[in-house]
Parts: sequence; structure tokens; C-alpha cells
Amino acid sequence: MSKPAEKKTDPDFCIPTFDDVEVAHERIKPFIHRTPVLTSSYMNALSGAQLFFKCENFQKAGAFKVRGASNAVFGLDAQTAETGVATHSSGNHALSLSYAAGQRGIPVTVVMPRTAPDAKKAAVRGYGGTVVECEPSTSSREEVFAEVVARSGADFVHPYNDHRVIAGQATCSKELVDEVNDLDAVVAPIGGGGMISGSCLTLSNIAPNTKIYAAEPLNADDAWRSFKAGHIIADDAPQTVADGLKVPLKELTWHFVSNHVEDILLATEQEIIDAMYLTWQRMKIVIEPSSAVPLAVILKNREVFAGKRVGIIITGGNVDLNKLPWMQT
Amino acid sequence: MSKPAEKKTDPDFCIPTFDDVEVAHERIKPFIHRTPVLTSSYMNALSGAQLFFKCENFQKAGAFKVRGASNAVFGLDAQTAETGVATHSSGNHALSLSYAAGQRGIPVTVVMPRTAPDAKKAAVRGYGGTVVECEPSTSSREEVFAEVVARSGADFVHPYNDHRVIAGQATCSKELVDEVNDLDAVVAPIGGGGMISGSCLTLSNIAPNTKIYAAEPLNADDAWRSFKAGHIIADDAPQTVADGLKVPLKELTWHFVSNHVEDILLATEQEIIDAMYLTWQRMKIVIEPSSAVPLAVILKNREVFAGKRVGIIITGGNVDLNKLPWMQT
Repeated sequence: MSKPAEKKTDPDFCIPTFDDVEVAHERIKPFIHRTPVLTSSYMNALSGAQLFFKCENFQKAGAFKVRGASNAVFGLDAQTAETGVATHSSGNHALSLSYAAGQRGIPVTVVMPRTAPDAKKAAVRGYGGTVVECEPSTSSREEVFAEVVARSGADFVHPYNDHRVIAGQATCSKELVDEVNDLDAVVAPIGGGGMISGSCLTLSNIAPNTKIYAAEPLNADDAWRSFKAGHIIADDAPQTVADGLKVPLKELTWHFVSNHVEDILLATEQEIIDAMYLTWQRMKIVIEPSSAVPLAVILKNREVFAGKRVGIIITGGNVDLNKLPWMQT
Repeated sequence: MSKPAEKKTDPDFCIPTFDDVEVAHERIKPFIHRTPVLTSSYMNALSGAQLFFKCENFQKAGAFKVRGASNAVFGLDAQTAETGVATHSSGNHALSLSYAAGQRGIPVTVVMPRTAPDAKKAAVRGYGGTVVECEPSTSSREEVFAEVVARSGADFVHPYNDHRVIAGQATCSKELVDEVNDLDAVVAPIGGGGMISGSCLTLSNIAPNTKIYAAEPLNADDAWRSFKAGHIIADDAPQTVADGLKVPLKELTWHFVSNHVEDILLATEQEIIDAMYLTWQRMKIVIEPSSAVPLAVILKNREVFAGKRVGIIITGGNVDLNKLPWMQT
């Protein structure tokens, strides 16, 4: 059905295939949870659709990102592994890469802005990672990260623009369609596009009739504008409660988005917060704001989804319980 | 193994048997979820035990109470059912009885203090129930409730001192031991004692080597004092964040507690709030304060549970998301 990953001239531009996904799934199984798929008669009645929530908030380290990070870490040959891995992230990828490296027992360095929450830094260290602080600017981050790589020789695992990472994230939709058949659509949040790309990779191969929708905050609609324009548009620091979705598409994720996504649907900040609150209240699960964007767009676009069987990727559950968005005044 | 429910002279004092539990389970299956049992490597490491969380926060109407309420409602003969059911409660039993009556399509009246949260009254009405308000005092509640029953002829379904309700709650532990074998102990919260009594009923019959521990707030320790004294001690309006656990034991639940409970363990308000926060943060599930008392006492009494396989009943997830206890200043 598909060939091994095709290497292009640019070594970073390597499009993963479904064979890579199957290899990834076997590789990472010991280190991830097979997360449950939840349903809710209340949410079904509200949306007019049959909704299947793939709950990556129950995943190791609290988010799907551990799939891609584990695939990258456990795919390294012994010699490369010895020098360790590195990334820059202040979010779930930082935790996930630290978790995966800790499981393999190899060094991991995460470059984080000094302004990142102490809890995030502590969590990285808790998994055995090293935090190197930079100033909260792109130039400082790039400079500090280059120093880290030059000094350590660590392998850079990008949060999403990496074929190993995308193949790992693709295992999530694979589990979903293994468990729920005949899905008419899958809706996942879009930020940098790692999860959407993984979903495209899997579904286009094993469930080609399932349409793929990306859900994006209106306040960070660079993927939507890219999709309409036909080329990548990157924004500088958009502001949204869905803090996992602020980053722009890159070449690899644009490949999947432009080729396989049916549409990108937008939700306002209030719609995202309302969908998040409703999910906590009715489904009794802790999800992060990014994970509420799919439900928000489904409730907003009933005509698109009514009567359909729809998978929703709940991407993660890492929130500050002391600062919930519906309580901000 | 056990005989049908034995009727005593007092018609209210009818001790349910395990046969009643099996009948109840078949009866209520169409109206309840078989809730999942979750595990957490983090919680295991923290406690030194192997913990199995039976998640009734995912139950219909958000709590285990729907088991007992459904058993009572669907066990009524057609003629009695026609005149409906009634109860007094401002908590999960009110929602659960309304849900069950709504499923059967029979009238349900709930007497609630006029000071009860509007959200609770709205939820009862949302399931098709009628709310009758009383003043927030025992005398007013009893007077109003007597009027309701006299007028409607409704069948009174007590929140816990009712053999049908206890047989229904007993199906929860039955599912737990069906799924997890060789449990050394089960820990459940204790308020009026409905869940603990159901657990005693099931475990003493099908898992007699499993020890049963009740977990109670120190601020509402009437069950603990009853247990030590050898007779029921009822407090007047204790104050605790675990608002489902303020009510006293009654004859039927005292029967089970005094005969089958290994020990009652106490937790302070702060310990309960910490355990609740930790569960939300690490397990990504929304649980109410009462549900956190078992984890609180397990973490406090490591020497009792270390190295053991321990079931925990997460009784419910109905909380006010706008007013979380760790945010109170």
C-alpha cells in the first residue's frame, strides 16, 4: 500500500509512509498507553452527530506528543542515542521528549524561555531532562539551541516538522480506526500540524473515505489562511487560550495539510472555552483548551457533521488547575 | 450462597442479599454505564500499592447513585410506578432518581431546600423531575416531604437506608471484582453508608478475603465514632468540603458497616483537597471531593496498603467548576 520513507535532497524533507507508522506503533507500544475512546450521549444529542473521543489526555506525560517523541528516541541507533536528544519547546513536546529519553536512559536537553512556568521546567527535570534557559525571543532561542547542539552533538527532535514525529503521531488515528469503524470524519486541532499530518497519513492509507477536518482558533488562524492561500503563512506570536496551537505550519506538515485536509474550521476564544467547560462538566475529563477546539467547531457547524460518525482527537490534558480560562475576569 | 431478602417485622428493615444484587444488575444494565477501571503508574509509585480506580464519575448522572435509584425505580410494579417516586436530597441522589424515573417515564418529586444551588434544581427538572422547595431545616423538610407523599402517594426512595438502593450500589463492587482479581482491599468513602454497604454485601459474598475500608472526612467523623462506640452516632450538620459525606448512618447501613468493615480511616480537609487536586492533575479526571477521601487515607496510611492490590471507588464527578476547593482563599 505504501513505500518506505522517501528521502528527498533536503534531508529534513522526508515524507513518512504508512509503513513507517506501523514500524512506529510496534516500536513505541511499550512506552505509551493505548488510550480509551469515550462516547457521551449528551454530546451526541447536542451535536446531532455520533462522536468518538480519542482521549490522549490520558496518554503518558498527558498528551499525544509522547507518540512522536518516543518514535524519534527509540528509533535512534545506539551511537546517536548515546549523545542524546534536544529540542526547544515550553509545552507538551518538552515533557514528552524528556519522558521518552528518560525511558531509554539517554540525555535530553530542552531549551525553554526563562519566562516559562516553573511547573513545566520542574516536570522536564522530573523526567530526568536538562533545562537550558534562553531569553523569550526567537533569536535568543535559536542562538542558545545552536550552542546546545554544537556542544553536545544531540539529535534535534523538532516538535512537528520531523518525519519520525509525524509517523509517531499517526499511530493515534490508527488506534482510533482500529476501534471505531466507518468514521465519516475525524476532527483534530491544528497548530504546527503534527497531529493533523499524522491523521492524514493514517487515514489516507487505511480509511480513505474518512474526511479530515482541522480545527483552529480564530485568533491563531494562520493554518486557515495558508489553506485558503495555497502556501504557508506564518504569524508572529498569535494570542489564544489554546496555547498549544500558536505555532505555524512547516514544510512537512504543509505537505499533508494541503493534500489531505477537507477543510479548516475556526472557533472563537469564547467558543473554545465553552466547549472545554462543557467537556469537563459532562464528560468528567480534564482536557486542555487546544483539545476543545474540535468540539467547538462541530457545535458551530452542525450542518457539516449532523448524522455523521465523527472521531475527535482530544490531544492532551495538561492545564494549570489554578488558572482555568472560564474563571479569568 | 445467599437467600432472597429477609423481611423483618419493621418493613423498612429488610437486609438485601447477593441474589438481590444479581437481580439488580440485570435490571439496571440498560440504564447505567459499566464504568471503566483506571490505573496510574504515578499513583502506584506514590502510594507503594497497586491502585484500581472504579470510575463512577463517568456514570450516568455523574455518580454511582444512579445504580440504587434505577434498581428502586425499575423494580416497582406497574401500579406503584404509576404514582411515581419521591425523595429528599439536594445531591447526587436527587439527580439519579430523576434520571431513573425519567427513563421509566414515571413522575418524580424531589424536596430540596430553597437554598440549594439553582444548578441542582435545574438538573432535576432537566431530567423531568418536579422540585418542591422547603426551608433549610430538618423540620421543614420532613413536613413538606410528608405532604408530598400524602398528596401523590409516591413511593419514597431513601438515598441509602433502603434495601433496593443498597442492592443497586452493590453492583459497583461486583463489576470491580469481575474485572480485577485478587484485590486485597477496597476503599470507599462513607457518608450515609450506601456505597460501603453495597460493597460489603458484594465482597462478603464473592470476595470474602478482600478487606473493606471506609474513608471519612475528619470533620464529619460520625461513622468513625459510631464504629468505635458500637452504635450509631449522628452529628448535626458537620462541615466538610466532601459534601456528599455529611449524612449519618442509619439502621440498614449500620448493619453492614458494623459487620463487615475492617476499619474507618480519616482525612483532614487539606488532605482531601490535595488528593482531589492530584487526581485531576495526574489522572485527568474530574472527581468530586468525596471521591478523593479514599486516596487521601491511602496516602496517609501507607503501612496499611503498601504492596497491596487496592480497589478505590471514585463515587462521582459532580462539582461546581466555578468554585474549586483549592482556589478558595
